[in-house]
Amino acid sequence: MIFGADYYPEQWTQKDWEEDIRIMKEMGISSVRLAEFGWALMEPKEGKYDFSFFNKILNLIHKNGMTAILGTPTATFPPWLVKKFPDIIQERDGVKRTIGTRRQACFSSPDYRKASVKIVTAMAKHFGNHPAVIGWQIDNEIGHEGSDIDHSPVSLKAFRVWLKNKYKTIQNLNETWGNVFWGVLYNSFDEIPIPGVHVASNFHPSMIQDFYRFHSDTIIDFVKLQAQILRKFSVGRPLTTNLYPSPFLPIIDMAELASYLDYISWDNYPTWGEQEEPFPHPFIAAMQQYNRGLKNLPFTVMEQISGFQGHDLLGYLPAPGQTKLWMKHSIVHGSNAIYFFRYRTARFGQEQLCYGILDHDKEKTERYFELQKGIKEISEYADDFVEELFPAQVAVVHDIENARNWKHQPISSGLKYSPVPWAQLGYDVEMATWFSGMNVLNVNTHFRPASKIDFKDYKIIILPMYTMVTDSIFQKLERFVKEGGTLILGYRTGAKDLNGWMYDSQVPGPFSEMAGVKVRKFEAVGNQKVKFKFRFFPGTCSKICEILEPTTAEVWARYTDKKKFYKGQPIITANSYHKGRVIYIGASLEPLSFMLLYRRILREAKIPFTFYGPTVEKLNRTGRNQNYEIFINHSGKKNLAGLKILNPYEVRITPKKK
Amino acid sequence: MIFGADYYPEQWTQKDWEEDIRIMKEMGISSVRLAEFGWALMEPKEGKYDFSFFNKILNLIHKNGMTAILGTPTATFPPWLVKKFPDIIQERDGVKRTIGTRRQACFSSPDYRKASVKIVTAMAKHFGNHPAVIGWQIDNEIGHEGSDIDHSPVSLKAFRVWLKNKYKTIQNLNETWGNVFWGVLYNSFDEIPIPGVHVASNFHPSMIQDFYRFHSDTIIDFVKLQAQILRKFSVGRPLTTNLYPSPFLPIIDMAELASYLDYISWDNYPTWGEQEEPFPHPFIAAMQQYNRGLKNLPFTVMEQISGFQGHDLLGYLPAPGQTKLWMKHSIVHGSNAIYFFRYRTARFGQEQLCYGILDHDKEKTERYFELQKGIKEISEYADDFVEELFPAQVAVVHDIENARNWKHQPISSGLKYSPVPWAQLGYDVEMATWFSGMNVLNVNTHFRPASKIDFKDYKIIILPMYTMVTDSIFQKLERFVKEGGTLILGYRTGAKDLNGWMYDSQVPGPFSEMAGVKVRKFEAVGNQKVKFKFRFFPGTCSKICEILEPTTAEVWARYTDKKKFYKGQPIITANSYHKGRVIYIGASLEPLSFMLLYRRILREAKIPFTFYGPTVEKLNRTGRNQNYEIFINHSGKKNLAGLKILNPYEVRITPKKK
Amino acid sequence: MIFGADYYPEQWTQKDWEEDIRIMKEMGISSVRLAEFGWALMEPKEGKYDFSFFNKILNLIHKNGMTAILGTPTATFPPWLVKKFPDIIQERDGVKRTIGTRRQACFSSPDYRKASVKIVTAMAKHFGNHPAVIGWQIDNEIGHEGSDIDHSPVSLKAFRVWLKNKYKTIQNLNETWGNVFWGVLYNSFDEIPIPGVHVASNFHPSMIQDFYRFHSDTIIDFVKLQAQILRKFSVGRPLTTNLYPSPFLPIIDMAELASYLDYISWDNYPTWGEQEEPFPHPFIAAMQQYNRGLKNLPFTVMEQISGFQGHDLLGYLPAPGQTKLWMKHSIVHGSNAIYFFRYRTARFGQEQLCYGILDHDKEKTERYFELQKGIKEISEYADDFVEELFPAQVAVVHDIENARNWKHQPISSGLKYSPVPWAQLGYDVEMATWFSGMNVLNVNTHFRPASKIDFKDYKIIILPMYTMVTDSIFQKLERFVKEGGTLILGYRTGAKDLNGWMYDSQVPGPFSEMAGVKVRKFEAVGNQKVKFKFRFFPGTCSKICEILEPTTAEVWARYTDKKKFYKGQPIITANSYHKGRVIYIGASLEPLSFMLLYRRILREAKIPFTFYGPTVEKLNRTGRNQNYEIFINHSGKKNLAGLKILNPYEVRITPKKK
Repeated sequence: MIFGADYYPEQWTQKDWEEDIRIMKEMGISSVRLAEFGWALMEPKEGKYDFSFFNKILNLIHKNGMTAILGTPTATFPPWLVKKFPDIIQERDGVKRTIGTRRQACFSSPDYRKASVKIVTAMAKHFGNHPAVIGWQIDNEIGHEGSDIDHSPVSLKAFRVWLKNKYKTIQNLNETWGNVFWGVLYNSFDEIPIPGVHVASNFHPSMIQDFYRFHSDTIIDFVKLQAQILRKFSVGRPLTTNLYPSPFLPIIDMAELASYLDYISWDNYPTWGEQEEPFPHPFIAAMQQYNRGLKNLPFTVMEQISGFQGHDLLGYLPAPGQTKLWMKHSIVHGSNAIYFFRYRTARFGQEQLCYGILDHDKEKTERYFELQKGIKEISEYADDFVEELFPAQVAVVHDIENARNWKHQPISSGLKYSPVPWAQLGYDVEMATWFSGMNVLNVNTHFRPASKIDFKDYKIIILPMYTMVTDSIFQKLERFVKEGGTLILGYRTGAKDLNGWMYDSQVPGPFSEMAGVKVRKFEAVGNQKVKFKFRFFPGTCSKICEILEPTTAEVWARYTDKKKFYKGQPIITANSYHKGRVIYIGASLEPLSFMLLYRRILREAKIPFTFYGPTVEKLNRTGRNQNYEIFINHSGKKNLAGLKILNPYEVRITPKKK
Repeated sequence: MIFGADYYPEQWTQKDWEEDIRIMKEMGISSVRLAEFGWALMEPKEGKYDFSFFNKILNLIHKNGMTAILGTPTATFPPWLVKKFPDIIQERDGVKRTIGTRRQACFSSPDYRKASVKIVTAMAKHFGNHPAVIGWQIDNEIGHEGSDIDHSPVSLKAFRVWLKNKYKTIQNLNETWGNVFWGVLYNSFDEIPIPGVHVASNFHPSMIQDFYRFHSDTIIDFVKLQAQILRKFSVGRPLTTNLYPSPFLPIIDMAELASYLDYISWDNYPTWGEQEEPFPHPFIAAMQQYNRGLKNLPFTVMEQISGFQGHDLLGYLPAPGQTKLWMKHSIVHGSNAIYFFRYRTARFGQEQLCYGILDHDKEKTERYFELQKGIKEISEYADDFVEELFPAQVAVVHDIENARNWKHQPISSGLKYSPVPWAQLGYDVEMATWFSGMNVLNVNTHFRPASKIDFKDYKIIILPMYTMVTDSIFQKLERFVKEGGTLILGYRTGAKDLNGWMYDSQVPGPFSEMAGVKVRKFEAVGNQKVKFKFRFFPGTCSKICEILEPTTAEVWARYTDKKKFYKGQPIITANSYHKGRVIYIGASLEPLSFMLLYRRILREAKIPFTFYGPTVEKLNRTGRNQNYEIFINHSGKKNLAGLKILNPYEVRITPKKK
Repeated sequence: MIFGADYYPEQWTQKDWEEDIRIMKEMGISSVRLAEFGWALMEPKEGKYDFSFFNKILNLIHKNGMTAILGTPTATFPPWLVKKFPDIIQERDGVKRTIGTRRQACFSSPDYRKASVKIVTAMAKHFGNHPAVIGWQIDNEIGHEGSDIDHSPVSLKAFRVWLKNKYKTIQNLNETWGNVFWGVLYNSFDEIPIPGVHVASNFHPSMIQDFYRFHSDTIIDFVKLQAQILRKFSVGRPLTTNLYPSPFLPIIDMAELASYLDYISWDNYPTWGEQEEPFPHPFIAAMQQYNRGLKNLPFTVMEQISGFQGHDLLGYLPAPGQTKLWMKHSIVHGSNAIYFFRYRTARFGQEQLCYGILDHDKEKTERYFELQKGIKEISEYADDFVEELFPAQVAVVHDIENARNWKHQPISSGLKYSPVPWAQLGYDVEMATWFSGMNVLNVNTHFRPASKIDFKDYKIIILPMYTMVTDSIFQKLERFVKEGGTLILGYRTGAKDLNGWMYDSQVPGPFSEMAGVKVRKFEAVGNQKVKFKFRFFPGTCSKICEILEPTTAEVWARYTDKKKFYKGQPIITANSYHKGRVIYIGASLEPLSFMLLYRRILREAKIPFTFYGPTVEKLNRTGRNQNYEIFINHSGKKNLAGLKILNPYEVRITPKKK
C-alpha cells in the first residue's frame, strides 16, 4: 500500500515545505502528487522553460525518502497561450470558455496539441528520470466539467474530418444515419453542423451518437499522444490519468482509454459541494467497482476525500470516523494506493473552501489524527490482499455505446438526471441501482465494461439498459448463456443497432429467442410508482414499464396496479436456454424488489448471500496468505452484522485461513 | 369520410411499398399524405429537380385506387440552400437555428422566399395534375416550435419595413405606441431594435404587440404566396395547411390565414412526449372546436395520433380502445377526413420513437386492428353527418389580439404557463377552462374567432379575457345584446385599445354600460384559491380577483374569503340591457363553479343541458337523413349516461328520426 | 415635511396639467419629481437642445406655488446616441442590452460619459436657477436591474486599467490574488478576462471581488461627475440619487456614494410585481434604517408606493389603509420628504400596470382620499420630529466588502437567494433577519455601514457575516469592546482578509481572543432546520452550523439535534473582554430564537424592550418639543399593544413631555 497526498508547494512558501513533509511523514504518507496545474510555472513564457521550482521540491521529497507522481499540466494552460492562439478555447451550448478558470482547451485544436506536446516533452525530459518520480498522471480529470463536449468551430472542423474518415462518402453517411428523415441530405461534409444548442427539436440521434464517439476518440488520442512522449523519456514509470468523480462517464470510452495506461486512478468524493448527504454506500461501491473494473486490476485513488469540500458552496460535514471509513472502503474494494486530496487547505483561489488534511493553518486537525490512525489500522492486512484480484462470480455490465445513447435519448423523464447543466447521469444512476441490489446482499460483484469483459469468468451477468447492440458482444453473451450462465436483462434490451437504427423486429430484438419473450408495448412512467407483485411480495417500479409477452419464458412477476390497463400483465420473466438462463426485467424496480429478485436468482445459481440491513456492507477478499471477511458499518450508530456488534463507521477485517 | 395515413415511402425500400399499400387498404385507408419533408429529395442540388421518386409512389398509389395529399416541403430546406444563403436562418432568444433539425427558415428572407417559390412551382407543375393528387398541404405545422417568432437581423430589417408601411412616419409610430415613455423616441425606423432577449425590464408592450402582428402577417403572406402558385398549376385541388397541436396559437392569426385556404386541417395529439396523462377531454374538445370554428366548416385531422409518440422522451401509453375513441372524437366534433400519424414507425431519425399504426416491423399491431375496427364502426353513421354543420346555440369566442396581448402581459402568474420555453399558453388554457364548463354540461358549443363570427347565430356568447377591444367587434356585441343575446364577459374586459393604450375610463371600459358594472380594484392572486359563494354553493377562484362595483347590475356572487379584505364584495354580476343580458365574471372560477353558473344561465336561456359526470361527454349531430345523440365514455371503466351503460372508451351513436 | 409626487407631464396633454396640479394640491402635495426619463425630449437630436417642454411645466408648477426635483435623464438614453456609439451598451451574462428598454448604458464608456456630461451641463445651465427647482436626482435607481455589473468589452478594457492603477505590476496582481492557483499567471494586464458567464468552475474569488469593486468605483465616479456639474450650475440645490428598492445593494458602496450627495433618497415598495404578500414589516423597517443609516440623517422616499404595481405581472393588492400606513412608516423611521410613485397611472408603456394615486382616468380614487387623510394625520406631529436624529442604542452593521464576498461565495445554499437572475440577495436577507429580532422587541435600532459608523455611539453592535476583515474596522471594534460595548458576532467571522485570502489561523481569526472561542468545523446545512437549545428554550437554526470550541468564553447554547454528530457541542458563547462583552453565534437562528437571545443581551445591557406580538411595531422618536411613542399595527385586524387597542393598519402617535 502507498499512502500519499496531493500537494501544492506552489501555494506555500519554501519555508513551509520541510515542516509540511515532516508532518506528512509522521502521519504515514510517503508519496505526493505534484504539478498538474503547473504549466505557467514551468513555461512562464512561450518556449522559456523553468523547472527549478519543481526540481527543488522533488529533491527535498527524495531527500526525505518520499516519492512523487507528476501530473502533466494540460488541464489549464497559461494565459500567454490563448493570447497567441485565441481559437484553442472550447465552447459549450453557446458559451465560450475562457482563461481564468480551467479545462478550457479544445482537444481538436492542432495549436493546443502542439503546445501540449512541447510542455510534456520538456517536462518528461527534465523529470523523467528523477529518482523521486514514480509515475505520471496525464492531464487532470480529463473531460470533467462538461469539457468532453465542445461546440467550437475548431471542434466542428475536426468532427467533419472524423466523419469523412469514418464514412468516406457523404452518400454513405446520409444512408447510415438515415438523413432522408426530415430531408437533411448533405451534399458534402462541410455542410454538417455542430449538434449543439437548438431552439426546439434536437438533432438526429445517429449524429449525436457519432458526435460523442468523435469526442471520445479525440480525447483518447490526446492521452495517447502524451503517453507516447512519457514512455519515451521516462522509461519504466507507470502512467495513469485520474478519472473524475461522476461515476460512469457517458462520453469518453474510459475502458478504451485505460488500454493506453498502466493503471486506473480516480477521484473519490462521497460528498462534495452542496450535497446534503453523502452518496449511499452502494453507490460509492459501484463507483469503486467501476474504476476497478475498467482494467480488472488494483487501482489508485488519486484524490481521496480528506475533509470538507466545495467551491463556493459547501454541504454535508463528514462525521468523525467517516473519512477514515471512506479511505478503507477504497482499499477493500481494490485500491492499492491512496492520495489524499489535499494536504493543506489553500488560502486563496477557487479551492479555498476545499478543506484538506490540515486547515489553513498548520495545527494538526482531528482529520489528521483520524487518518493517521486509519492508515495504521488497515496496513496490518492491506499488504496481504491489495495486489490480489477482487473475487466475484457476479458482474454488472455497462456499455459505453448505451451510456451515450441513453444520455441523448432517455425515453423516460425518470431516466433524465442533470445535477449540473453539463451532465445527464440517468444511465449512471440507473446502473448503480441495478448494482446496489447485489451490494446490499453482500455478494462480491464486479462492475465491468461490455467491451472488455470475459463473460465466462462469471456465473451471473447483469446487463441493464442494453438497448444498442454490438454484434460481437451479443455473440459472446449468447455463448455465455448456452454454456450455462445466468443473464439478467432489462427493459429496452436489443432495440437498436450501432448505427442508431431500431431493429425491424421487436424488443428484445436479437435476444428474443434466448429471453423467450417479446415486447410490443411499454409506457414511460417517469417517476411514478407502479405496483407489481413478485411472488408474495408487492413492490413498485418506475421509469419504463414494459408489457412482456412470453413466448417460451415463464412469468415471475406481474403488474398489479389498478390505475394501469396492463394490470395482470407480466413484468419479469425467466427463460431456460440451452444450459443457461435468461431473466428479463421489464421495468426499473425499487431497491427492495431488486433484492428479493436477486435472492431468488442467487439461490438458483448457488451463490451465497447475506443481509445485515441497509447500512452494513460485507465483502470478501483473498490475500496471498489469508482470506478476509470485511464488515463495514456505514452508519453513525452501532450496528449488528449477524452476531458481531460494529461500532459507528467501523471497518472490521476478519482474517480466515485459506 | 376519408381515412388516410401519413406515409414516408422515402424511409423504406421500394420493395416495402406494395406490401405497405396492401396492408393500408385492408385496414380501410384510401389516402396518404406525402412529401412534406422531401425538398432535398426533389431538388438535391440547386435547380436540379428530380421528381422520379414521388412519381413512382404516386403512380403506385393511383394504380391501387388510392389518393394523396402532397405537402410542400418548405418546413425544412436542404443543406445546400443555407450554405449558399447563410442568413436565411431564424434566431430565437439569442440562439441561431441551424441545419440538422427543422423549421429553421426565416420567413422574412427574400432568398428563402425565392427558393420556396421555385420548389413549389416546380412541384406544382410536375404533380399538379397527377390523378392521385387530391390536394395540397402548404408547409408543415407552420409557426410550430417557436418559429412564429424570429429575432434574426433579416427579421429585424423586415420588421422595420412593416412598421414603416403601417405608420408612415416615425412621429406617428412614437405617438401611437407612446414612446415618450422611458424616453425612447426614435428619429428613424432604422433605430428600432428587435424586441428579443433582454436582461431585466421588457420592451414596450405596444411594440411587442406589433412584433407579433408583423410575424403573423409575414407567415400568412408566405402561405398566400404558395397558395397562388398551387392554384395556378394544380387547378381544383383544395389547399390546406396543418395547424400544429398547441390549441389557440397566440401569434399567427389562423382565422385570417384560413381565409386563403380551402379547409382547415390540424394535428391532433391528445398525449405527446413526456405527458403523464392525456389532456382532459374538454380540452381536446376545445381544440377540435377551435379548429372547426376557424372556418365553421368540416375539417381534416392531418395527423391523428395512432400510437405512442415523442422525440427523446415518452410518457403516457394510450390504453386499448383509447386511440380509436380519439379518432371518433375528431369525427363527431366535425372532422370529415382523418390521416393517421404515421403509417409505420421510422427506424431512424428524431422520430424513431413516434410509434405509428405499425411498429418498426410489419407485423400487424393491436393498434392496427383497433383502428380498423373503429373505421368500420364509425362509417355506418359518419357519412350521414360529417358534411353537415356542427349545431350549437352557444359559442366561446377567442380573439387573436388578446391572445397576443395576454402572452406578453399575463398580469397574473396564474396566467403564465410555459411547458416549453418558446410558448406561453396561459390564454389558451384559460380559454379552454371557460369552454369546459359548457362541455361537461353536454351542450354543443362552438369555439370561434371574434373576427369571423356572426354573433347573431347564437343565444349565448362567452367572451373571456377580452381586454383589448376592436371597435367593430364591440359594436357587433352591443347589437347582439340589444337584440336579446346573453353575453358572458370575464375579468379585465375592455381595458385597452388596439394600440395597447389603457382606456382613460375604468374596466370594463366601453362595456361598462351594458354590463352595469365598474371595476377599480383587482388583485392578481396567481394560483391561490380564493373563496367565494354563488347562491348556496361555495367555490374558489384564482388568477385575477376583481372587486366589482355594480352600477345597474344585480349581484350574483360575492367573495367570502376571510384572508381577503374584499370579503363580501361582488365577484359576479348580471345586467339586463335592452332585450339582452350581460353576465360579468370578475375572476377565474374553478370548473365546478363554472358549471353551476352556466347551469343558471342555460336555464334562463332555455337551452337544455345534462350532466353525466366528469368523464362522459354527450354531443348532438344533425345528419342529412337522421339526427344523432353521441355518448362518449372517456374513462377506462364502465360509466353511466342516464340509463345507458357505456363500456370503457366507448363512443355510442344513437340515431334519431329527424 | 414635504409631500410630493412623481409626475410625468410628458405622458399627458397640456390640457391635463392644470387639472392635475389642482388635484395634487387638494390632496396636500406641494412638490413633484420630473424629467428623469426625458433625455430624448430635451435633446431630440445630438446637440439640439429643447427645454421648452419642461420649462412650461416648471413655470406652471411655480405659478401654483409648488416645487420640483429634477432627475438627470441618464438612466435611459435616446436612440440616436447608441446609433452613433454602438459600444455604449452594457452586456450581462452573454446578453447585450439594447435600446427599447432602460439602463443600457456602459458606465465605463468614454462616449457615454461625454454625452452624459453634455446633457447634464445643458440641463443644469438651463434649469439650475429656475425658482421651482429645489434639488436634483442624479440618474435613476443607478445600478438597478443588474446594471451594476457589465460584461461588455468596454467594461473589460476599463477593468484592466482599474487593475493596473491598483496593482501597478502584473506580478503584484498575481501574488495578491494568488494566481498560482490553477496556474493562471498573467504576463500582462491585457490577458485578464472578464469574469462573466462560464461553463463550470467559477472565476477566482479575489478577482470577482475586485470586479465588483471596479464597478462600484466606476458608478460612484459617474455620479460624482454629474454632481460636480450640478453644483457648479445649480448652486444651493441639494443633490441625491434614488437608491433602488432591493435593500442592501451588494455591489455599489452606497455609503461611499452618499458622501458625494447631500441626502439619501430611496424607492420604497413593500410589495411589487408578482409578490403574493408584502415584505414582513421588520424587513421594511430594515430597508428604512439601511437608507437612513447611510448618512445617519433624515432621508427622502423618492418613490413611495401609492397603488398597485408591476410591469407585466402583478400580485398582492394593498388593503385599505395599508398604503397610508406604509407612508407613515417611512416618516416615523426617518423620512422628511415623501414623493408618491406615481401621480397618475400611465396609459401606455411598460408601466401601464403601475397604478399610482389616480388610475388611468381622473376620478379620485380611494387611494387618493386615503393618502390625503394620511397626510393630514401625520402632519400634526411630523414637523416636530422629522429633522431630529432617530435615537438608538443598538446598531446592526453591514459591510460592503462582505456583501460582495457572500454574493459570489455564499458557502451555504441557504445563503443563496436569487428572486431575479441578476441578483443574489442572500446576504441582504440574512442581515435583515439579524435586524428583525431587535425590531420585534420594539427596540429602536440603527442599521449602519461598517465604514462610516462610530461604534461608541452605541451600547450594542450586531455584526453578522463579518467574514472579510478590514483592519481599521477591526481595531475600532476592539476598542469598542474594551471600553465596555457589547459586540454580537456571527458565523464565519474573521475568516479572510481584504485580498480574499483565508487567514492562516482559525475562525474567528483576529476576533478569537475577544470572542474567547475557536471554530475548526462547520457544516453548511442549507435550509435544514437543526435543533439546539438556548437555556430552556428549544429552537432551530439553519444555513451554517459552526461547532464552537470555547477558550475563555462561557457556553450559552448547545446543539441538540440527534441527526447531527455535533449534538451537545456549543452553538452560542459569551465572553467578557476588558470592560465589554462578545457574544458569538455560530449559526443562523430562527426568528423566535433571535428574540429570546436578544432579550437576554438587552437585559444585561439595561436596554428596555417590549413585545406586542409579531404584527405590532413600536418606535420612539425625539422631537424638538415633545417625545413620541409610536405604535404601528401592521395587520388588517385589531391588535393589542399593552392596554392600547389599535385599529387595522393604524399608526398611533402618542406625544410625551420631554
